Amino acid sequence: MRLLTYCTPGDDTPRPGALLDGDLVADLSALASAAGVRLPPDLLGLIAAGGPALATARELLADAPAHGAALRPLAEVTLRAPLRPGKIVGVGLNYVEHVAESHRTLDTERELPDRPVLFSKPATAVTGPGQPILHNADLTKQLDWECELAVVIGAPAFRVTEADAWRHVFGYSIVNDISARDQRRSGQWFFSKGQDSYAPFGPVLVTADEIPDPQRLDLSLRVNGELRQDSNTRHMLFGIARLIADISSGVTLEPGDVIATGSPSGVGAGMVPPQFLQPGDLVEATIEGIGTLANPVVDAR
Amino acid sequence: MRLLTYCTPGDDTPRPGALLDGDLVADLSALASAAGVRLPPDLLGLIAAGGPALATARELLADAPAHGAALRPLAEVTLRAPLRPGKIVGVGLNYVEHVAESHRTLDTERELPDRPVLFSKPATAVTGPGQPILHNADLTKQLDWECELAVVIGAPAFRVTEADAWRHVFGYSIVNDISARDQRRSGQWFFSKGQDSYAPFGPVLVTADEIPDPQRLDLSLRVNGELRQDSNTRHMLFGIARLIADISSGVTLEPGDVIATGSPSGVGAGMVPPQFLQPGDLVEATIEGIGTLANPVVDAR
Repeated sequence: MRLLTYCTPGDDTPRPGALLDGDLVADLSALASAAGVRLPPDLLGLIAAGGPALATARELLADAPAHGAALRPLAEVTLRAPLRPGKIVGVGLNYVEHVAESHRTLDTERELPDRPVLFSKPATAVTGPGQPILHNADLTKQLDWECELAVVIGAPAFRVTEADAWRHVFGYSIVNDISARDQRRSGQWFFSKGQDSYAPFGPVLVTADEIPDPQRLDLSLRVNGELRQDSNTRHMLFGIARLIADISSGVTLEPGDVIATGSPSGVGAGMVPPQFLQPGDLVEATIEGIGTLANPVVDAR
Repeated sequence: MRLLTYCTPGDDTPRPGALLDGDLVADLSALASAAGVRLPPDLLGLIAAGGPALATARELLADAPAHGAALRPLAEVTLRAPLRPGKIVGVGLNYVEHVAESHRTLDTERELPDRPVLFSKPATAVTGPGQPILHNADLTKQLDWECELAVVIGAPAFRVTEADAWRHVFGYSIVNDISARDQRRSGQWFFSKGQDSYAPFGPVLVTADEIPDPQRLDLSLRVNGELRQDSNTRHMLFGIARLIADISSGVTLEPGDVIATGSPSGVGAGMVPPQFLQPGDLVEATIEGIGTLANPVVDAR
């Protein structure tokens, strides 16, 4: 399933839905209502409800084409972030070439890390597809991009082995890990990476069954149409299963939690000369099998 | 009000309540029920509901002594963390003497920071009064303590001035900012400070009206009865209003969010020789006007 959260014109209530062939959005709540079954009212609830609720959603969507009233063209709705996660765990320095460019330009260590470098972004940083990335020139002159595969947790995970890790994955999406490089504080990344709108998330949440090999996905990022990042998730230093095992060795991962698995090289800070986001820019992060997450940068002073 | 969340023997449902004179716990839901009024079912809801709900709670508590059935001795209940915050923003290096001891022993900078050093702990790190701090010797040999004044946000704050900051404070509590010093990763503190049970929180949440000057509170910490930290919140480098203004310049603070305002000197890493927490230890963090947050350290392998 290609799950999403959306609003319709004139109604700001977020609705859970799914993207069907032909760029049609199916309203999961309307389908459940029509079928006389109950579904949680949002994707976070659907994930937390587990297998039976998902099976119900799958059946409803299989019948969706017969329920025209529950379908709308994608172009007629406004997408939101798929869900508001309890936490976003970010992974720094997780692609080899990005470790090298960060060392050159961002004062990080030259050596490859021997353990995943973890940080976090708060839920208040999340914004949806098409929503503005806030550029506040009073706070930053170094607003930067990072296209990352987002792993969304399905079942609670604490002290999970690498072998078992995949059973805790609900699906995949995209996070653009926005940073104000000049707001690192004594090396800590929270304020640099945690500001409102610094976690564009979406456009859809693809269930794990539709991504046969999440460690072999092309990912790329364009700024105003120009290619800035272009890599593949097979170049991760610590793969998804290892990240889940490592994080969950001490931190419980809950349904809906997001792991932003790190950025390949090609960030603005690594360009010669460095190039950063400016109001008016459009940033498009693309991952194979998921889609493109596009966000404009706006002056937010 | 001295608000709290508690369970009764044989019933794990958390209940919102308040601590009254004579160490009596009043059941806010029972009082509301008896008075035929509605109150949110937990403290986070109560905070989010704002002024009118709080006024109702205050009135109910004023009449509580007449409702014996809604009262229990504190010794007969089990306290929980007052609430599960959306986020905990931690402040590093916020007491001058702690900056010096951290520089000596924890590789941080010698100079006083010119901006607050912000990090975060996830909600999954929160644990309640009396609950175990998990010691996993496979992950750490350097488990350390930090007694901190917790500021709990009442009204949403974004781009708030220092002058307006106080209006966004709901109240105060204690966070023990537990760290596994040897789990800093390329300098990032998330895994070091974000593990399950690394944010003991409580024992009560005191509303702001009962703390006349939060920048003049003694705070101290004992391990197995021995004094390790002993300071006063007037020694903060960046005071509470400045922290709220600074964080909210980029990050929205929501009702129930917690700012852990930093630790004075006297952490284990700074002792000669360094001393860290071991299974069997008891850690007691005390702040004037709030109380004592006591947690045992247990072997969690």
